[in-house]
Amino acid sequence: MKIISINAGSSSLKFTLFELPEKEVIASGLFEKIGIDGSLYTIKYNGEKIVKEVPLPDHSVAVECLMNDLIELGIVKDLEEIEGVGHRILHGGAEFSKPVVLDEEVVKRISKYNELGPLHNPANLLGVEVFMKKLPHAINVGVFDTAFHQTMEMDHFLYPVPYEWYEKYGVRRYGFHGTSHRFVYGEICKYLNRDDLKVITCHIGNGGSITAIDSGKVIETSMGFTPLAGIMMGTRCGDIDPSILEYMVNKTGKTIGEITNELNKKSGYLGISGVSSDSRDIEAAVEQGNERAILSQKMYIQKIANYIAMYNNMLNGADAIVLTAGVGENSCLSRKLILENIASLGVKLDESKNDFRGEFRCITTEDSKIPVYVIPTNEELMIALDTYEFKMAE
Amino acid sequence: MKIISINAGSSSLKFTLFELPEKEVIASGLFEKIGIDGSLYTIKYNGEKIVKEVPLPDHSVAVECLMNDLIELGIVKDLEEIEGVGHRILHGGAEFSKPVVLDEEVVKRISKYNELGPLHNPANLLGVEVFMKKLPHAINVGVFDTAFHQTMEMDHFLYPVPYEWYEKYGVRRYGFHGTSHRFVYGEICKYLNRDDLKVITCHIGNGGSITAIDSGKVIETSMGFTPLAGIMMGTRCGDIDPSILEYMVNKTGKTIGEITNELNKKSGYLGISGVSSDSRDIEAAVEQGNERAILSQKMYIQKIANYIAMYNNMLNGADAIVLTAGVGENSCLSRKLILENIASLGVKLDESKNDFRGEFRCITTEDSKIPVYVIPTNEELMIALDTYEFKMAE
Repeated sequence: MKIISINAGSSSLKFTLFELPEKEVIASGLFEKIGIDGSLYTIKYNGEKIVKEVPLPDHSVAVECLMNDLIELGIVKDLEEIEGVGHRILHGGAEFSKPVVLDEEVVKRISKYNELGPLHNPANLLGVEVFMKKLPHAINVGVFDTAFHQTMEMDHFLYPVPYEWYEKYGVRRYGFHGTSHRFVYGEICKYLNRDDLKVITCHIGNGGSITAIDSGKVIETSMGFTPLAGIMMGTRCGDIDPSILEYMVNKTGKTIGEITNELNKKSGYLGISGVSSDSRDIEAAVEQGNERAILSQKMYIQKIANYIAMYNNMLNGADAIVLTAGVGENSCLSRKLILENIASLGVKLDESKNDFRGEFRCITTEDSKIPVYVIPTNEELMIALDTYEFKMAE
Repeated sequence: MKIISINAGSSSLKFTLFELPEKEVIASGLFEKIGIDGSLYTIKYNGEKIVKEVPLPDHSVAVECLMNDLIELGIVKDLEEIEGVGHRILHGGAEFSKPVVLDEEVVKRISKYNELGPLHNPANLLGVEVFMKKLPHAINVGVFDTAFHQTMEMDHFLYPVPYEWYEKYGVRRYGFHGTSHRFVYGEICKYLNRDDLKVITCHIGNGGSITAIDSGKVIETSMGFTPLAGIMMGTRCGDIDPSILEYMVNKTGKTIGEITNELNKKSGYLGISGVSSDSRDIEAAVEQGNERAILSQKMYIQKIANYIAMYNNMLNGADAIVLTAGVGENSCLSRKLILENIASLGVKLDESKNDFRGEFRCITTEDSKIPVYVIPTNEELMIALDTYEFKMAE
């Protein structure tokens, strides 16, 4: 059965077409600069890569191009072969704790949370709308970044702010990257053949979040009301003294919106190093002795170690730690530094096992008190599998 | 030698008169509602307590009353007996890493940091000015809440925000309660007869901060740019997602100043419980089954446990944990709950040792991996001792 996994952004659309249950990727691709000059798209299939520069005035035209090419390239004979469309949706509020079959009524309910994810949710739902029209026979399923975290208890999801901020305005920890944390947790449970594992999953990419999971239930996660909170990231600050915002508004005359924007886009690795938001560039600059890059790397690693230590205590001792996403899967150096910074937990890196990228492996010694695994994440597959399950249950 | 320790607030002035080096308290007291209707003062000495309701239009009049009473009550025969005045000063920026002898030039330098502590610093310096006039023969010494923390390294005091926020505007972690953390660290070092101890000092009162100290040097502390950051407090939120501020400004139409004020004054225990900012009231409400009080207590304890776990890892294993200040010294229940929430560190409470208030005691079992001590703090004494040292060195 063919299922397509979709991630629609405000000016982009990513897709992966799977054959399920075989988990085979048939084709994948990206539409860029939708509604902007210079729009183009890329399709990868069968070892080939096609790039086309064409006007993409809106998401509807992009999906039209995709459908035509799928037929023309012989990837599918008939669009009806695509039986399900899984949509990545950023925010489902506290209401959506699981993937959900989408219809107009459900889309309307989801759109209530657009103001909690103003940059992503409207675009995600626009993608849904277009696919509902273009593939009217297919099942559409929404898979939320926030959903997995909705098992958190109130004492972990509330902030110590006036209670009415929660009641009236929905201010609480929601958590993000839920699909990724759920995927790698599922993988480690399958691998160790247990479903009661206590695991700290570290999704460390350009964005990053760390989650404490016990028996499939999220105890706490480092991102919060928005993806700005938690560890230091590529361009985001993570946790800081909340007084800084008022001080900077008063000092600079900028608006609170402008200051918050700088915390999202000009902070983290980029803000401290002045070099880049990308850990590969930081590592290169560290190699060259760039002092601010060295400083930024120390801070970055320390914040990750802090959350692992905190969550290991919260879980009263984790059974495993999982590293995933761009940095977790690919940066041998970051992995080494993280493990060195949690030595007090009895974690011991086996350096001979750490020299690789993007594979499922254990990188600790036999006598490490907590084993650490690198597990490549696959949100696209998770979304497709969730969609497949609904289709099979029809 | 008689040394007086002063804490001048915007409408109050606290004093303690010591005989040093004996550490004997000769008299102490509080002037309240200075510059406000209904002003009064209290002086305790010799087991007696005097309360006088008199107009106190300004700090100068308050100090005048104090001096007159010290003579009249026979506490001192001559004001020249008071050889030193130690002043608690909130903020010395990054410049003052130690107590300092005060003169006009130094006061001017300190006043540069008034904007970092706008509620306290100007009042603290007003107190200095008045005592310089009233006791011109005495040495005046400034003891900063921030000073002890100035040993932090850059990777621990910087925030992952644009670097120029630090360079241009001084945005960094300063830390507070330094005099208290230094005092209890000194006490535990004396007690264990070592000066290389790795200790987590927990100053837990209505305000609260937790500090990781190694060999007398602060590695990191939970309060930050201001005293709003870190653990949940009586009325302060501690660490939260910094995006919440912009969202609440937009939702409520309040200013960033008003929202930050609510984070300082209407959050923490008070905000969640709706009952009180005082842990004694919270404990009473928990006893009665009040659900929001129960929730607030779980959150409060968890945040403290989080920082202890994080700092224990940062120190690569602490030699001791110290609890101090209002809650730490006096709440048996909070102590019990905190220790239960750091069980993963190998900490074991000895319940039979925990039923007391305000004494120097170890409360853990012999086989606790980290011993936990309750040590009453004494910032007034620390300030007086610092002043005494300068006087002796003259």
